[in-house]
Amino acid sequence: MSADKKDIEEGLSFRPKFNEEGLIPVVTVDAASNEVLMVANMNAAALAETLRTGKGTYYSRSRGKLWVKGEQSGHEQKVVEILVDCDQDCLVMRVQARGGQCHVGYRGCFYRRVKKGSSDQLELVGRPVFDPKEVYGESKDD
Amino acid sequence: MSADKKDIEEGLSFRPKFNEEGLIPVVTVDAASNEVLMVANMNAAALAETLRTGKGTYYSRSRGKLWVKGEQSGHEQKVVEILVDCDQDCLVMRVQARGGQCHVGYRGCFYRRVKKGSSDQLELVGRPVFDPKEVYGESKDD
Repeated sequence: MSADKKDIEEGLSFRPKFNEEGLIPVVTVDAASNEVLMVANMNAAALAETLRTGKGTYYSRSRGKLWVKGEQSGHEQKVVEILVDCDQDCLVMRVQARGGQCHVGYRGCFYRRVKKGSSDQLELVGRPVFDPKEVYGESKDD
Repeated sequence: MSADKKDIEEGLSFRPKFNEEGLIPVVTVDAASNEVLMVANMNAAALAETLRTGKGTYYSRSRGKLWVKGEQSGHEQKVVEILVDCDQDCLVMRVQARGGQCHVGYRGCFYRRVKKGSSDQLELVGRPVFDPKEVYGESKDD
């Protein structure tokens, strides 16, 4: 194993590895329940803002800009801790999240599961916690 | 909102969206503790194998082939359920995992966190649970 690989995997320097698009995937987890709320991306600026403000801030590829979660909906994320994986190309961010975190109206984005014994059918496992139309109007932008 | 978008977000058909490389990211979570163990990719064949066998099976970009987690180490994953997110481009797989799931020797890959108040220093939050040299020799291949 190279010294560099060993340093990345076992060292205590934070050296996040952004992909060819300049992004690192982030798994955002409810700090209380450990439920996975969402998976999104940060660029270097979004990560720096998240560390500076303590609020979950991402990079939106579709909108081409930084995106403070909850800016529009009020459903923001207070960062509890940020974990990094062995090869430092993925983050887990544990947050205290206010309200539903998924724009469809659920607490998190993973509100359906593959039905037992099926490969093409889903079943609901979540319950809606807010009405997206009330919160976002027609835009659904955060 | 288009009928197709509504169907993807709110329907009960499983229509996983693979990216331009033919991959979908998978967040693998310990079904007992909800701890995020690892983040990896599946292609369509890996997903089909996972559904068929009930064992966590991924696609390794570096090796260019399917990879049954624990094939070499014995640290395999029994699938409990597979959740899909709103836009169906990411999975959460809840598993019963045998032994350490990270090749560095920890239960999961996220054994370090960014130190409070720092943007470049990490601190350990995990404890090693096995010796990679004993389990993998020099290969560290699963």
